[in-house]
Amino acid sequence: MSLSLCYLFQGLSKLQLRRLSAITRETAIEKGQCLLNEGQKAEELHVLESGAVELMMRVEEGIEIPIAILRKAGDCVGASALVPPHVYSLSARCVKEGKSLCMKQADLQQLILEDRDLGCIIMTNLARNLLERLKETRQELKIHFRTLFRSMQS
Amino acid sequence: MSLSLCYLFQGLSKLQLRRLSAITRETAIEKGQCLLNEGQKAEELHVLESGAVELMMRVEEGIEIPIAILRKAGDCVGASALVPPHVYSLSARCVKEGKSLCMKQADLQQLILEDRDLGCIIMTNLARNLLERLKETRQELKIHFRTLFRSMQS
Repeated sequence: MSLSLCYLFQGLSKLQLRRLSAITRETAIEKGQCLLNEGQKAEELHVLESGAVELMMRVEEGIEIPIAILRKAGDCVGASALVPPHVYSLSARCVKEGKSLCMKQADLQQLILEDRDLGCIIMTNLARNLLERLKETRQELKIHFRTLFRSMQS
Repeated sequence: MSLSLCYLFQGLSKLQLRRLSAITRETAIEKGQCLLNEGQKAEELHVLESGAVELMMRVEEGIEIPIAILRKAGDCVGASALVPPHVYSLSARCVKEGKSLCMKQADLQQLILEDRDLGCIIMTNLARNLLERLKETRQELKIHFRTLFRSMQS
């Protein structure tokens, strides 16, 4: 069981992890399979058990650039399923067959409504991760600004 | 009272807003005053009542670029105070005198521990906002990638 390895679920009690397991189903993922598509309704959250998943960002029609490859048990895709308006912000494609633990958005929402402590822990973990990713993305922008400043100075 | 205007506190009950008010103090902000500094410990969250605050990102030593100017009652700075490791990711400077509603990180943390429903609502609002800002920052990066692709194609 890799749920407790996922950053989203760190700090949950054993009972809370059991509640989460009750709405989780294990699914096989095949090489080439699209797990989720940027811009589509975020109906599922996947936690990787085995295999590998590539995250991609659409730059323009027909052009996608790779953002990251997830390979570790506990890595997850589809956290947008936890946040209104529930729309995927990236695409994810399986690049090595394996298994994922899959939770439906509606089941997660119901569980979070019923157990506010669980909800608070998951949402704090998510906010922390999003802030980290926001900082990283800003760092990439900074590199472009630095290049610009230097070309203006020279 | 502008607390209920802040995106972080939308969806809280009247009782929860009263609990929040109890740990809030109104402070005057002066033109030129630094409200928070990038990289420093996030000890306070500010909700703007009046005046204006500029957000800045450090590009390199001595060079900061403006990110946004907050002018609306309910706009807030210092949401990093809500998320471990509690470090500000931007700087904020007052550019027009006014008033802010200020909450201490330790008081917020205590309130979130005591009222998990309040915590879950605030953290969901924060995650939603962070995801939105992450998407916006990625959009800016996409512009750089597009320029690169086009220069490679021509």
